[in-house]
Amino acid sequence: MLDIDQHDHATLVILEQELAARFATLKASGLALDLTRGKPSSEQLDLADALDGVLQGNYRDASGTDLRNYGGLDGIAEAKALFAPLLQAPAANVMVGGNSSLSMMYQALLYCMHFGLSGPASAWSKSGPVKFICPVPGYDRHFTACIHLGIELLSVPLTGKGPDMDAVEALIDADPAIRGIWCVPRFSNPTGEVYDAATVDRIAALGKRAHKDFRVFWDDAYAVHAFDAAAPTLPSLWSACEAAGTTDSVLLFGSTSKITHAGAGVAFMAASGSNLAAIREHLGFSSIGPDKVNQMRHVRLLRDAAGLRAHMDKHAALLAPRFAAVLKALEQGLAGAGMGEWLRPQGGYFVSFDARPGLAREVVRLAAEAGVKLTPAGATFPYGRDPADRNIRIAPSFPSLQDIKAAMEVFVVCVKLASVRQKLG
Amino acid sequence: MLDIDQHDHATLVILEQELAARFATLKASGLALDLTRGKPSSEQLDLADALDGVLQGNYRDASGTDLRNYGGLDGIAEAKALFAPLLQAPAANVMVGGNSSLSMMYQALLYCMHFGLSGPASAWSKSGPVKFICPVPGYDRHFTACIHLGIELLSVPLTGKGPDMDAVEALIDADPAIRGIWCVPRFSNPTGEVYDAATVDRIAALGKRAHKDFRVFWDDAYAVHAFDAAAPTLPSLWSACEAAGTTDSVLLFGSTSKITHAGAGVAFMAASGSNLAAIREHLGFSSIGPDKVNQMRHVRLLRDAAGLRAHMDKHAALLAPRFAAVLKALEQGLAGAGMGEWLRPQGGYFVSFDARPGLAREVVRLAAEAGVKLTPAGATFPYGRDPADRNIRIAPSFPSLQDIKAAMEVFVVCVKLASVRQKLG
Repeated sequence: MLDIDQHDHATLVILEQELAARFATLKASGLALDLTRGKPSSEQLDLADALDGVLQGNYRDASGTDLRNYGGLDGIAEAKALFAPLLQAPAANVMVGGNSSLSMMYQALLYCMHFGLSGPASAWSKSGPVKFICPVPGYDRHFTACIHLGIELLSVPLTGKGPDMDAVEALIDADPAIRGIWCVPRFSNPTGEVYDAATVDRIAALGKRAHKDFRVFWDDAYAVHAFDAAAPTLPSLWSACEAAGTTDSVLLFGSTSKITHAGAGVAFMAASGSNLAAIREHLGFSSIGPDKVNQMRHVRLLRDAAGLRAHMDKHAALLAPRFAAVLKALEQGLAGAGMGEWLRPQGGYFVSFDARPGLAREVVRLAAEAGVKLTPAGATFPYGRDPADRNIRIAPSFPSLQDIKAAMEVFVVCVKLASVRQKLG
Repeated sequence: MLDIDQHDHATLVILEQELAARFATLKASGLALDLTRGKPSSEQLDLADALDGVLQGNYRDASGTDLRNYGGLDGIAEAKALFAPLLQAPAANVMVGGNSSLSMMYQALLYCMHFGLSGPASAWSKSGPVKFICPVPGYDRHFTACIHLGIELLSVPLTGKGPDMDAVEALIDADPAIRGIWCVPRFSNPTGEVYDAATVDRIAALGKRAHKDFRVFWDDAYAVHAFDAAAPTLPSLWSACEAAGTTDSVLLFGSTSKITHAGAGVAFMAASGSNLAAIREHLGFSSIGPDKVNQMRHVRLLRDAAGLRAHMDKHAALLAPRFAAVLKALEQGLAGAGMGEWLRPQGGYFVSFDARPGLAREVVRLAAEAGVKLTPAGATFPYGRDPADRNIRIAPSFPSLQDIKAAMEVFVVCVKLASVRQKLG
């Protein structure tokens, strides 16, 4: 395909007419498709349906504890052992909670902000304005959790191998108000990139140059979520921190939301002994313990690392064709057209598309008009403001393959139409 | 039995020797018993073991929603309908959450304190010191949740029919910093008393005389937990508030922790439309939704009001003999002895015992020495300080009947020994 910048005016006019006609036809076909949410499909959820009944009347753990009763603030030993390798951290540093890693992250953020992880004086709110670094594009719920707690957000670009660490380090050196950074290190939401070893090492080293109460919020939401066997692995942040002597500066999070049942899974975190002690202390004021029965359901279903891998392979088999359909549509429709750029993720839940500057909102608007719901433009940036108005997050996990194909046909037409109209001015 | 105050010195000396000898014998017998925690026994937990597997592969609610996936911030309709009668509030005003009403109450308290239920300016922390009224003796985790959030606690006595409302109203009229009151209205923890209609009406009316952001925290933890069919019912706070026009001033909480599995149940709350909207808004920053699958497990197990009643009758059959054993031991050992007072609860999880002033700590210490663990003296008062050092909470639900009898024998001897020694000076 010829690059849009090489078309003459007359060609653009004809193109616009053709595209407007195709758009009108698509619109008239009455589609109602949705590419907005990173939700597992029903088929993926089916994979874990054995959860209900998996205990077969055995409600005790290996140590004989009655899992039905109160207690056990930081989760059961078997679940810690199962999920520790996923975070690449020692089981002794893991705690396992309820159904939501978002809740766990918010709670940790709340404790840092108002209560302190190293005594009351270490509460961030005690020392003036608090700022967080947000690699962009990123996950809107990370941003809004900070905003709800009164934390200011500073963007740094992602590079394809993680955050631009020169920018991160320069910000930290320049601004003593910075208390944290959000990271989705493997199959980043939405770019799908995996942080490389150099980036992980530099993130582990931040604890040495940042404020003593600085914390990396490491949301490893897609740790085992490759759908391409050749996907890069993520180096262990924990090991890098051990080498750097900075384990106190990181909090690692994960969950089974995209492993078993999205709304009825198990969340977990890893942290240093001193961070865990502080979190347990604060958590003890609002909880007597998580749902240990559901934790044991997960242990009995997934069993061990091999069981987890086998389970994730089944997810991959369902996700791979969906992502292939998105990428094929983009390639066939837009490769070489100068109308946008995208990465080819090998795991995770999203394809991140960058339209020509100034067009994300318009593409989303056009798609909605033609019956295809996309994540609102700007959602992947702090305060919902994408400065270049370029980034669109495509989430193909939930719809059927047929719906994805239909939606992507609309998407490509909308991108082309918006691009050509922009060129025409 | 003769009242201790009527014994002469010589009799007291002989009594002390007899009791010290019995105490030594009990101590030597190497008991290891525990009357500390309001935990259901294994037999009670067994009653709900059908929860695991109860869905039989049907993970959809009546509206067809896939309960396995994300979403539904305030719980499923079927669970709201099931639990609304328990709180005596309309299902439309109910939200259903995760496994812990303590977490739900803490969260509501946090929102009131830092974020406001009527816009940011209504956050309690914005207007200077914040105080809460605590009827005593009460539940330590209510007190500590407030303390963690920086809320000061003011005690008012319970009367046997609820808080001393003259004292409550006088405090509210005198101190504009008061923003709430904790209530456990049926089978209060630990006294077991049930608030009567006049008290409920006066609590409903507090919204008219208190600060506009004042909230009653109504922890109806034992709403359906009578073990004596003649136990008084609790008038509906919601109806009283509707009559008084004060529904915005109350937040009602409950859970299935002492209905199904203590650590793996479902918590719920009722509130006015405007309170619920604010809570949902704040909650949306930290949660995508509760575990809807576990909510549906509870719906399928308990079904409806009749199913719930039948289930609670089975609990009553297990609890009644345990409480009878405690009360029989107190009566046979201490009636008329002038060594303590207690109420005869008809439901709930506790027997509240008031020793002679200044002896609660000593009784708990002696019992521990003889191998019987009791809740620390003072735990039922704010800041752990029982001004009269009298109150001891006895929790007989968890141990076996045989263990309760053995523990109560020790308890009675400890009360007598401490009392006689106090008289001897």
